[in-house]
Amino acid sequence: MICYTIMKAQKIIRPTLIVDKNKAIKNIQRMMLKISQSPGRIRFRPHFKTHQSARIGEWFRELGVTAVTVSSVDMASYFAKNGWDDITIAIPANPLEIESINQLAETVALNLLVDSVEMAGFLNLNLNRTLNVWLEIDTGHHRTGIEWDQKNEILSTAEEIQKLPKLRFKGLLTHSGHSYKVKSPAELIKIYDDTVTRMNTIREYLDEKGIPGVEISIGDTPTCSAVEQFYGIHEVRCGNFVYYDLMQLTLGTCKEEDIAAAVACPVIGCYPQRNRIVIYGGAIHLSKESMTHDNGEKIFGLVALPDPDSHGWGPSVNDTYLSDLSQEHGIIKTDAEFCRQVNVGDILMVLPVHSCLTANLLKDQFCIKGREPV
Amino acid sequence: MICYTIMKAQKIIRPTLIVDKNKAIKNIQRMMLKISQSPGRIRFRPHFKTHQSARIGEWFRELGVTAVTVSSVDMASYFAKNGWDDITIAIPANPLEIESINQLAETVALNLLVDSVEMAGFLNLNLNRTLNVWLEIDTGHHRTGIEWDQKNEILSTAEEIQKLPKLRFKGLLTHSGHSYKVKSPAELIKIYDDTVTRMNTIREYLDEKGIPGVEISIGDTPTCSAVEQFYGIHEVRCGNFVYYDLMQLTLGTCKEEDIAAAVACPVIGCYPQRNRIVIYGGAIHLSKESMTHDNGEKIFGLVALPDPDSHGWGPSVNDTYLSDLSQEHGIIKTDAEFCRQVNVGDILMVLPVHSCLTANLLKDQFCIKGREPV
Repeated sequence: MICYTIMKAQKIIRPTLIVDKNKAIKNIQRMMLKISQSPGRIRFRPHFKTHQSARIGEWFRELGVTAVTVSSVDMASYFAKNGWDDITIAIPANPLEIESINQLAETVALNLLVDSVEMAGFLNLNLNRTLNVWLEIDTGHHRTGIEWDQKNEILSTAEEIQKLPKLRFKGLLTHSGHSYKVKSPAELIKIYDDTVTRMNTIREYLDEKGIPGVEISIGDTPTCSAVEQFYGIHEVRCGNFVYYDLMQLTLGTCKEEDIAAAVACPVIGCYPQRNRIVIYGGAIHLSKESMTHDNGEKIFGLVALPDPDSHGWGPSVNDTYLSDLSQEHGIIKTDAEFCRQVNVGDILMVLPVHSCLTANLLKDQFCIKGREPV
Repeated sequence: MICYTIMKAQKIIRPTLIVDKNKAIKNIQRMMLKISQSPGRIRFRPHFKTHQSARIGEWFRELGVTAVTVSSVDMASYFAKNGWDDITIAIPANPLEIESINQLAETVALNLLVDSVEMAGFLNLNLNRTLNVWLEIDTGHHRTGIEWDQKNEILSTAEEIQKLPKLRFKGLLTHSGHSYKVKSPAELIKIYDDTVTRMNTIREYLDEKGIPGVEISIGDTPTCSAVEQFYGIHEVRCGNFVYYDLMQLTLGTCKEEDIAAAVACPVIGCYPQRNRIVIYGGAIHLSKESMTHDNGEKIFGLVALPDPDSHGWGPSVNDTYLSDLSQEHGIIKTDAEFCRQVNVGDILMVLPVHSCLTANLLKDQFCIKGREPV
């Protein structure tokens, strides 16, 4: 029998990101409390690439946040239009976007990232006004930044930035993204400790060499969630924590009930003879980000039932997961019992592996729990 | 030194999908020629989920295509607005979208997919007018559809569809997506042969049981590209072939020079000391679809240089590939020589692993080779 769920009342008819506001607010408050209870004055500059939503940005603002991080010039422009006026673009500045950067810098306090003398020189030549600049340090992630133990290169780059009139040297910034590859919370604490030690070693070296008062900015959600309190830093830029997801759950940095975003997906096929359910919800809604199951298979999401009372969702269903994704289809492996409970036309909720990528894909198709689509 | 490439003339300043029209047209013509040279009258109903672009749809129309396939009701609406009036939505009909389906069916000839008596009954009750319906058969992909050897279930579903006044039974449709998992072109030919044999076994069975003249529709790009000519079918729905990509290259179904879509990405970091280049171009531009390198690492794309003469790109660079993607960053592993050639501010071209997902992500950021963004 075809049956409709409570989701019909919300007019959810295609893959839609549902954000649980209560959970997200709790996640924000927990991180802010930890920052406020840590020694020293630490600036919270949450990364808005996770949600990319002005509406969700307002929840941060209502809690007192005034500075934000983004990962592109486009995203900076979007949040500038929505009233944010202190924005760090946390990716090495792209020289091809210099015109947009100059335009943005007319209206907001823009903070840029560099990791080379060449890029610092380019900015100095091409910026219309003086901007804050962070020097990116590679503390182990090996993506961008000068490697933390290249003291001379760091010093000469910092000295060069200090000389350039259009750049105001703000400090040292790092993203310890290697934290996503650990196996235990204890390893996360170690990455945090190593990161802070490495960054402060450089800070002290710069101080010795006549560059005092350099700030330190860190950012990855795994270590920021794992530590009991922060120390040795001036700024926290994490972002994923607002939603969390299955990656964080696996890292032990959140509980399943903290996950604040799930994708409502219509069921379009039930195949009890092979313990499969197929949803309308594929790679262009959830992303192809995957984790590895104990059985060696890929997992593209866990599955929960919508909760008719709260308009949210319940706990994830045992032994049930998204095992494959096509462009629009998602294939759920489950058992015969769950197959019998589910019908074509129902809505199932998918807990995403990586909520940032899912939220990006469903930017135009998302709603707050219990409300109309926005 | 920071240097700009020819791409600057095209105002390409952020990750942008570049489509090589000549290559795409050749790919379309090659497939159409094969269809026209195959025995019988075969309908070409290309899948437009690959490009999702009205402009590229026009190239098909100019070559004589009149019928198309899409993978969602939204996509059907988009192409209907752009003048296409014979559209198959090749995913089992989603009951929650029945209103949109009815609206669409007012203006275009819509063909739907069902794989159960329940869904056929639902459509019959809820459709406003009679529509063509294909019965989906699972010939080995194990995604959706009734398994090909379940003769009785197929027969009873076909008989039920025939009884229902709002459904016009069109035929049997399959997507042999297991073709993406083979190791050689010979295996692709075998999958094609098996698919056609299985579909025709059912067709003959239905004919014996009083349901004559049933059409057969197939669709996956790997087998459609691998076979020398088609036989035993009435309709071809492949889509990816218009662009091809690294998956198809690995399957042996295209040559590198057939790949008609690549992503222009600004270089934002060069690290010759560790043979790495970092581009602005990450998971939200390319998708997290990956392949496995001989060395066991993941590959998220190959890298080519832009061609200043053609505004396209040259052959892929040896021993150079995207080895990791963040949300916005792409990490290229290469050798010292290539590192020395490349500068921050240059544009590199990335050949995508799965062009459908990349094109979906860059729907709003794409241009035709040598022209302004569209």
